[in-house]
Amino acid sequence: MLATNQMVRDFPEPEVFTRDCPTQQILDVITDKWSVIVIYCLAYGPKRYKQIQRRIEGISQKVLTQTLRNLERHGLVLRTVYAEVPPRVEYALTSLGETLIDPLLAIANWSRQYFIEVAASRDRYDNQLP
Amino acid sequence: MLATNQMVRDFPEPEVFTRDCPTQQILDVITDKWSVIVIYCLAYGPKRYKQIQRRIEGISQKVLTQTLRNLERHGLVLRTVYAEVPPRVEYALTSLGETLIDPLLAIANWSRQYFIEVAASRDRYDNQLP
Repeated sequence: MLATNQMVRDFPEPEVFTRDCPTQQILDVITDKWSVIVIYCLAYGPKRYKQIQRRIEGISQKVLTQTLRNLERHGLVLRTVYAEVPPRVEYALTSLGETLIDPLLAIANWSRQYFIEVAASRDRYDNQLP
Repeated sequence: MLATNQMVRDFPEPEVFTRDCPTQQILDVITDKWSVIVIYCLAYGPKRYKQIQRRIEGISQKVLTQTLRNLERHGLVLRTVYAEVPPRVEYALTSLGETLIDPLLAIANWSRQYFIEVAASRDRYDNQLP
């Protein structure tokens, strides 16, 4: 793997380098691993809490509850309570949340394409250490 | 914002829902806010430690050191020590790291495009609470 030479980029420097920049605050929300996975899960259609929990292995109830609340808070997920007995609660992506699917899919595809290379690099690095 | 109806997705269900899936491990590395920002910073060309630190407001020395080490460990950043007096240390994206620029740019562009909507949603949510 070669380092790149100095190169001219054709994209503007993002304001993301600025302290307290709003984009940076949003990054905090959407670049959380569990948020990414929950958004994926809902990309296939609305689901009840238990359905999400069954679908995503290894997520604790505490983390799933916090993640859903955080996504709802930021307008990415809509929580709907249906007046049935017992009440049915369903989670769905909002239209705003839907717009995140493609960018997140690009990240997931990258992970899928390169994870062997990344893991090999990690193992080499760890084996170098005393 | 409307919730979407059940819809058929034309992408396969990612294995990212599976416990200990390798893609999920990689997500942990590349969806860290500071990793994203440091990769951006190096997307404009190799830099010395102090240059990165000056460029990214609000990053502590501890966090920057950990972030660079983590990116190096996973093969995304190359650390080169030049035999000068005093030694010059430079950080650059590897060719693997370069492949992450476009997906991460999509995420940053999303944040830039929608942060007002996300922040408004957050404020509405917080004002509802007792």
